[in-house]
Amino acid sequence: MKKKVVVSGIIMSLVSFSGMAKQFVLTDSEKGIAVGDWHVSNQTLNIANSTTFSVQNNVLKGGKQAGSEVITITSGDFIIKLSPTRGMGILSVEGEGIRLGWDSPVNEVVHPSFINLESRGGLGWLDGFNEMMVRCGFAWSGHATKADNMVYTLHGRAANTPVSKLIVDINDYAPYTITVKGLIKENTFKKSQLETWATLSYTPGSRSFIVKDTVTNQSDYPRDYQIIYHSNFGTPILEQGARFIAPVKQISPFNHYAISGLATWQTYLAPTPNFDEMVFNVIPYADKQGKTQVMLTNKDGDKGAGIAYNINQLPVLSLWKNTDTLKQGYVTGLEPGTSFAYPVTIERQQGRVPQLAPKQSVEFSLTYSLLANKADVTAYEAEIKAIQGTRQTSVLDKPLANE
Amino acid sequence: MKKKVVVSGIIMSLVSFSGMAKQFVLTDSEKGIAVGDWHVSNQTLNIANSTTFSVQNNVLKGGKQAGSEVITITSGDFIIKLSPTRGMGILSVEGEGIRLGWDSPVNEVVHPSFINLESRGGLGWLDGFNEMMVRCGFAWSGHATKADNMVYTLHGRAANTPVSKLIVDINDYAPYTITVKGLIKENTFKKSQLETWATLSYTPGSRSFIVKDTVTNQSDYPRDYQIIYHSNFGTPILEQGARFIAPVKQISPFNHYAISGLATWQTYLAPTPNFDEMVFNVIPYADKQGKTQVMLTNKDGDKGAGIAYNINQLPVLSLWKNTDTLKQGYVTGLEPGTSFAYPVTIERQQGRVPQLAPKQSVEFSLTYSLLANKADVTAYEAEIKAIQGTRQTSVLDKPLANE
Amino acid sequence: MKKKVVVSGIIMSLVSFSGMAKQFVLTDSEKGIAVGDWHVSNQTLNIANSTTFSVQNNVLKGGKQAGSEVITITSGDFIIKLSPTRGMGILSVEGEGIRLGWDSPVNEVVHPSFINLESRGGLGWLDGFNEMMVRCGFAWSGHATKADNMVYTLHGRAANTPVSKLIVDINDYAPYTITVKGLIKENTFKKSQLETWATLSYTPGSRSFIVKDTVTNQSDYPRDYQIIYHSNFGTPILEQGARFIAPVKQISPFNHYAISGLATWQTYLAPTPNFDEMVFNVIPYADKQGKTQVMLTNKDGDKGAGIAYNINQLPVLSLWKNTDTLKQGYVTGLEPGTSFAYPVTIERQQGRVPQLAPKQSVEFSLTYSLLANKADVTAYEAEIKAIQGTRQTSVLDKPLANE
Repeated sequence: MKKKVVVSGIIMSLVSFSGMAKQFVLTDSEKGIAVGDWHVSNQTLNIANSTTFSVQNNVLKGGKQAGSEVITITSGDFIIKLSPTRGMGILSVEGEGIRLGWDSPVNEVVHPSFINLESRGGLGWLDGFNEMMVRCGFAWSGHATKADNMVYTLHGRAANTPVSKLIVDINDYAPYTITVKGLIKENTFKKSQLETWATLSYTPGSRSFIVKDTVTNQSDYPRDYQIIYHSNFGTPILEQGARFIAPVKQISPFNHYAISGLATWQTYLAPTPNFDEMVFNVIPYADKQGKTQVMLTNKDGDKGAGIAYNINQLPVLSLWKNTDTLKQGYVTGLEPGTSFAYPVTIERQQGRVPQLAPKQSVEFSLTYSLLANKADVTAYEAEIKAIQGTRQTSVLDKPLANE
Repeated sequence: MKKKVVVSGIIMSLVSFSGMAKQFVLTDSEKGIAVGDWHVSNQTLNIANSTTFSVQNNVLKGGKQAGSEVITITSGDFIIKLSPTRGMGILSVEGEGIRLGWDSPVNEVVHPSFINLESRGGLGWLDGFNEMMVRCGFAWSGHATKADNMVYTLHGRAANTPVSKLIVDINDYAPYTITVKGLIKENTFKKSQLETWATLSYTPGSRSFIVKDTVTNQSDYPRDYQIIYHSNFGTPILEQGARFIAPVKQISPFNHYAISGLATWQTYLAPTPNFDEMVFNVIPYADKQGKTQVMLTNKDGDKGAGIAYNINQLPVLSLWKNTDTLKQGYVTGLEPGTSFAYPVTIERQQGRVPQLAPKQSVEFSLTYSLLANKADVTAYEAEIKAIQGTRQTSVLDKPLANE
Repeated sequence: MKKKVVVSGIIMSLVSFSGMAKQFVLTDSEKGIAVGDWHVSNQTLNIANSTTFSVQNNVLKGGKQAGSEVITITSGDFIIKLSPTRGMGILSVEGEGIRLGWDSPVNEVVHPSFINLESRGGLGWLDGFNEMMVRCGFAWSGHATKADNMVYTLHGRAANTPVSKLIVDINDYAPYTITVKGLIKENTFKKSQLETWATLSYTPGSRSFIVKDTVTNQSDYPRDYQIIYHSNFGTPILEQGARFIAPVKQISPFNHYAISGLATWQTYLAPTPNFDEMVFNVIPYADKQGKTQVMLTNKDGDKGAGIAYNINQLPVLSLWKNTDTLKQGYVTGLEPGTSFAYPVTIERQQGRVPQLAPKQSVEFSLTYSLLANKADVTAYEAEIKAIQGTRQTSVLDKPLANE
């Protein structure tokens, strides 16, 4: 069934009404749909018995963010912001007075048309980087390098690809779970036809949300892919004495500079001038189903962020400690991935660049949790400790590779 | 005379009304005009005695095609789509159930602001390539190469240049020929001032149309130029046993890989995994006026596409056989040009880069025909055979150059 | 106080109404404001006793200028055009039948999304260059070079950065001075956080205007900066026998080609085929407060353009003589700067790349004057001569550096 409805003054295409979910198509390049500014809430949908919620889309204006869209999901004081124009990257999450995210010197949601990924020797991605979670991938990821007669630009193209389709589903029954999904096409003649449905699901009233991505190789040939879920947290969780907690099988320094930070990998410094960044390559333990989880907690253990996922999907994790000054971007990245952040050439050599067969899909699922108090933090840490159990952590004192 | 008219709900500037042609200015950067979505038809123009026709302009939405415009010319079941935003490239032509065009993995009409021609070592053009006919030029064309302290990017800039002016002329008398013309400016201080009026003319009821381009060197210095009319056909015409027919004076393999395909240059394979592409350099024969024509026909000889043009304008032709798998882009290119597809450095060495004197213009005219049945195909082939006559085809077994 | 007002049919945000100035926020990326087409005048503001004036903003259409905004300040026959989309560059100034500006082959106000600064080996800036005054900077300036694993593209990024904020202030009292200010952000994670308020002030009825820029290093680290105010004049002031007049302490040829023009550095040729460009490095004298001024006058000395500024802010000046043919861009640049136009690597070696401490700001102020008659020109020249006084001009016969 297909009909037109008017919600909060904007005409939308209500593509399906299954009795199970209301579906709102905000963008569809095939059907010529891009609704722009848009808003629904439990009230406009005549849902009386729900935790309050709203979902809105805004087209930004001014500077290098002109034309960028931002979806805001709100439920009570819990607010998730993501940008379909920037590959469904999650800008920030707030709840209980705690912010997941960080303060980048890049303080606009930069539209991809202003980004030249090849600039600064392949570091153009840094002109837009400010997300709480940015997908590094999918045709390649990692540090920039020249190989194969091209520049593999830093962390790939997905984050600077506007979605071709953008759909908001809201379950028609309690607890009215909201799902925002966007289609990211990395299509280049002869080179790439990876298409990714990137999804965020949130249940009103909750303090966690699920990221679920399906990457499909639409081509007739096997294709390499990589993904790093570059998940970034600054203040108020990150602070001097904040801790990174994970069930760690092996940890090693990314490069020589990180060797000096190996002894203190579990804790963080205050904002530290000239610290720049230290990166550690982590191989987590998991339970028998492959489930693992990692977290960041503040010093007092009453604020935190956790990520739960499966190491069969994402076997390695980059721990990025960028505890430089506040203005420089005081932030740490907990980055589950198929790969470490070495250039794709090194990742290939070391066997961390998987392939998709023609038409094959691969799914990644991560649950992000805002840990709002001591009980939350303690419980989450206990789950991590249970995964580690009595198993040892191997600390390598040399980098896996020289970049 | 200048007046405002309202046609199908949109206010347009009717710049001139000569009694000979109605002129609709859809875009004019000097006058601040860009009408966006727009539509006329024989009905809205009160033309009763005509074959039905309509011309419309649509602004696309979503993904990397946001903001791209597409002109659709329709007459009965005959439909031509072209994109003024992408240098007047012809996206597809359909009629009699036959499609001229192909299925690229690039399945959006990518807006130039999302294209970085320098990416992938100068192959960024591949991020947008899906046209039935794309102009490769005009300041340069051919494969990417580094020379003169710059990257000559693959096939030049014209296809990723939005037009500065876009005009639709509709003759005010039977048979009401429709002409769409767009102005492509390749202007760079000190480097280039080539301005091209790219034109497509179509007479309602016909199964052919004319491309006529005028390239003018607006600078005070002689300037190199190149053009390859990269004309691309996939299914349903291209299939196993499909044939390329042309009056051929000389044919040679583009590179070593193509040598193995030299014996079968006149026919095509079915979609063939790992075939990639074979290119042949063709020098056609013409009649005494320089007129030649080339064609592609399906195996049964009841569907085809033909291109008629003048070898005094376009002396060489690249035959591009990309009979790889369907998803990889099963397609062949019949590409009349001033030049072969070698990098501009090689084309210069071999004398295939002409120059325009200051203020000089050069014109190119090509008639594309959809051959809808056995009679069409047979007649078109007979004309080609008549041009060849008894003249020999020289088959060189070595490439003209090593790229 | 904050209220909404409607001026000439467009709703604007009137952010403050101090009793001293009316403030119109045309763009604010933080507040989601971008008013687009907009207009005020002394009449719409109910100012009766003023010299007439108007300020308008227009969003351009078509070609590569689609989306570019242009502010036009008009008072009587005096018209200033500047583009906030192109880093507040001044496109042209006209008054008394005299035009400050020039005719570039680039004849659209090219939107930055169509510019790839890295193209042509770092010369992509030339695809947009046509301003009367373009800011070269701020993170770097000068000729393109490869260093530090990146390309320092020609003349930096500021000119191709759309403003994040755009504010028009109009004094609420005679003579109702108009100030247009835009915020240019050069923000890149880990690399740059220079934020510049670029301002143009004009008093209705006057034939001069003031450019005042404040560059702030928002980062926690010292940062290099450079600025060249690339101020360009063609016909009708530039002509055979036109003169460059400045209080010159030292002048030297930029490169070997310019040596041959050293004897005639004070005068200009007619449009001269194959002249290309000659550049001279000038170190001006100033008065005791550092104030200096430079000018261009036509042959008869009845039309001119002058720039007054302080050498403590801008110690050096590049004199760019591009007296090639009219279509090639017959133009001269009088370019006060922190730096000459050598690549940043050379400017660093020679000590002309200053730094800003964390949070430090630096201000630049230049007064541009249209000299409309013999009296204007004579008086301006006399002021320059007074600065020179009896001090000698040192003419070096070798370039300061080999690029």
